[in-house]
Amino acid sequence: MVAPERRPVVDLTEEQARRALPLKWGVPDDVLPAWVAEMDYAVDPVVMGAVHDALAAGITGYPLERDPALGEAYAGWAGRHFGWAPEPETVREVVDVTAGVRVALDVLSGPGGVVFPTPGYNAQHGLAGVTGRAEHLLEVPADAERAEIDLDRLDRVFAEGAGTLLLTQPHNPWGRAFTRAELEGIRDVVVRHGARVVSDEIHAPLVLPGAEHVSYLAIEGTHDHAVAVVAASKAFNTAGLRCAQLVVPSAADRARLDAQPMSRNDSWSPLGVVAARAAYDLGDPWLASLVERLDQQRALLATLLAEHLPDVRMRPVEATYLAWLDASAYGHDDAAAVALERGRVMVSSGASYAPGATGHVRLNFATSPERLTEVVERLARAWVQ
Amino acid sequence: MVAPERRPVVDLTEEQARRALPLKWGVPDDVLPAWVAEMDYAVDPVVMGAVHDALAAGITGYPLERDPALGEAYAGWAGRHFGWAPEPETVREVVDVTAGVRVALDVLSGPGGVVFPTPGYNAQHGLAGVTGRAEHLLEVPADAERAEIDLDRLDRVFAEGAGTLLLTQPHNPWGRAFTRAELEGIRDVVVRHGARVVSDEIHAPLVLPGAEHVSYLAIEGTHDHAVAVVAASKAFNTAGLRCAQLVVPSAADRARLDAQPMSRNDSWSPLGVVAARAAYDLGDPWLASLVERLDQQRALLATLLAEHLPDVRMRPVEATYLAWLDASAYGHDDAAAVALERGRVMVSSGASYAPGATGHVRLNFATSPERLTEVVERLARAWVQ
Ligand SMILES: Cc1ncc(COP(=O)(O)O)c(C=O)c1O
Ligand SMILES: Cc1ncc(COP(=O)(O)O)c(C=O)c1O
Repeated sequence: MVAPERRPVVDLTEEQARRALPLKWGVPDDVLPAWVAEMDYAVDPVVMGAVHDALAAGITGYPLERDPALGEAYAGWAGRHFGWAPEPETVREVVDVTAGVRVALDVLSGPGGVVFPTPGYNAQHGLAGVTGRAEHLLEVPADAERAEIDLDRLDRVFAEGAGTLLLTQPHNPWGRAFTRAELEGIRDVVVRHGARVVSDEIHAPLVLPGAEHVSYLAIEGTHDHAVAVVAASKAFNTAGLRCAQLVVPSAADRARLDAQPMSRNDSWSPLGVVAARAAYDLGDPWLASLVERLDQQRALLATLLAEHLPDVRMRPVEATYLAWLDASAYGHDDAAAVALERGRVMVSSGASYAPGATGHVRLNFATSPERLTEVVERLARAWVQ
Repeated sequence: MVAPERRPVVDLTEEQARRALPLKWGVPDDVLPAWVAEMDYAVDPVVMGAVHDALAAGITGYPLERDPALGEAYAGWAGRHFGWAPEPETVREVVDVTAGVRVALDVLSGPGGVVFPTPGYNAQHGLAGVTGRAEHLLEVPADAERAEIDLDRLDRVFAEGAGTLLLTQPHNPWGRAFTRAELEGIRDVVVRHGARVVSDEIHAPLVLPGAEHVSYLAIEGTHDHAVAVVAASKAFNTAGLRCAQLVVPSAADRARLDAQPMSRNDSWSPLGVVAARAAYDLGDPWLASLVERLDQQRALLATLLAEHLPDVRMRPVEATYLAWLDASAYGHDDAAAVALERGRVMVSSGASYAPGATGHVRLNFATSPERLTEVVERLARAWVQ
């Protein structure tokens, strides 16, 4: 048997990280950043090489209106990884995932409100309003055993006038990868109400051992009411290169999108297209190492929490490198602020994911084992009195 | 006297252009492209070097929410070139110019319609509708001696319910750089109606000898009702790197913009920021050569038209590398289609700039003298029977 081809994950030194990740590492010198969803790892050299070659060829201008090779690359990748693939010609470029969600809502959804399960990705709070729609929060209670979408409540918000579910699959910050059965349950409620789904699947490549990714579009009976927004950018640390993809299985939906004025959606970068194609076509040997590393980091985090912060509650992390921590047992009004002030660790404040969740934080564990150890030790010093 | 520092403009070979400019040169092998607004010149090596260095440092992730150095760089550049500069802290990143126009309309304009002078930049036709506003065309008649904004008609469309003028200064495809006096006249009408202005100044660096750029914001009494959208991307051929800037002189307007959910405006690329900073800070020696070259190309075009296409009407080109040609004397129903079919030249169809302007085309002259000569000779073979 031949060992599968691998390229290693290379940790960035602190100096390298400060240069490469200006947002995440734009913190004071004595602060460790564990907030925004970027990884302290070097970009896969094969992906970086492709972008470098494109730049050397002088590609700094407008991209093609559609690059058929990108749809082919995504379809090939999805087929290999998820056992389901869209038709390549159903794939459309967008500048980033959130912009893709926005254009899908603007063009394909009716005026009804948007169901936004919370805690939910902070930068998409308020997106419904940006599209002129009401935002219906569907809250997972902090003490729920498992983070899941309550179908009865989903049914109710649709009955109350919501028209679109913004699904995050896998979920940030729940860390969940929804099962086929769960997705079928969601579909049934959606279909009953003639509602729509926008499925943000940016974290799909980051499903960790023990779980699997099922695209909402892989569920029967979803193609007439759903799109997926996908990207290589989160798994390959290339969000700044600016290209995500909309998968639009319905020909009628594609016709509506393609008929829009180009000012609705023409901002992606050709370098983003190059990075995405390289990641999908050539990134598997690096992604395998990444998933292995994140699996180790996940285990390390559990060990560290058990040792230093036994009263933090954390549900199983099935996907993503983002852990949703309930630190309310330690009794701080604002756990993230205390972590920063006393511990010099920057985590994301729970309140930006769910109103009032100030006892929670989101912790990014995509770093070195040493840094993660230091992060948890600092959190313990900050939180435990 | 010391000669001013210069870096030369380097022409791309056809092979290089096909690689570097996939959209513009994505035409069949026997077609010469003179359509989309990109130049057949290599990017300034200093700007390219800065982007290359950023990539080598691994900058592929999220940019800073605001890079103060970008505002400083733009203000310094504007001061040197236009004799007027905004306060650096009034500058905001956006992904591209058209997205900047969109966010300004969405956030700062009331529900009234948008005045769009025509012929007008094709990709912004329909943008008013994307923001949910009516589009009021303010047509410059094809036989007008000079392309200008008719203040009486502007007054009328505001009276009829329009609320914002989308000014393009300098204008594409008119090739006009509006004078201070013209801008003051526009301001007076705008102020009388309590209307707003979004001034798209992407072509400002491309004002050619004989004219000068006056920002709409350099006119007294405009700061409470106007923003400018600016970029280095058109002059430096880096539109695909994705960063333009909004200049927002009113503190109240900035407060409204800064209070938006980030999903409204967070898609620019850090590489676009790097390119813009390098262009503003270090690009003058290259831009001076570019303007000189474009001035020569403009003169060559006039000579070629006089020789080969004497019945084409072209108003003086004061700015941009885009000429608006009235070829209707040659009697073709669709001058651009005939140019492509018979002449194997791709020019932009006039009808995409003004409804019904099928006898007009927009011609991009930012190429080599040899290619421009070939383009005009081919047009003559196609149009003259
Ligand atoms: C669920 C989810 N969607 C979208 C994004 C951001 O994607 P983009 O930068 O492409 O908009 C993130 C970033 O972490 C995310 O977690
Ligand atoms: C007047 C005008 N505005 C905007 C643009 C495009 O700018 P961007 O690609 O940054 O939206 C162009 C392109 O030629 C233009 O002519």
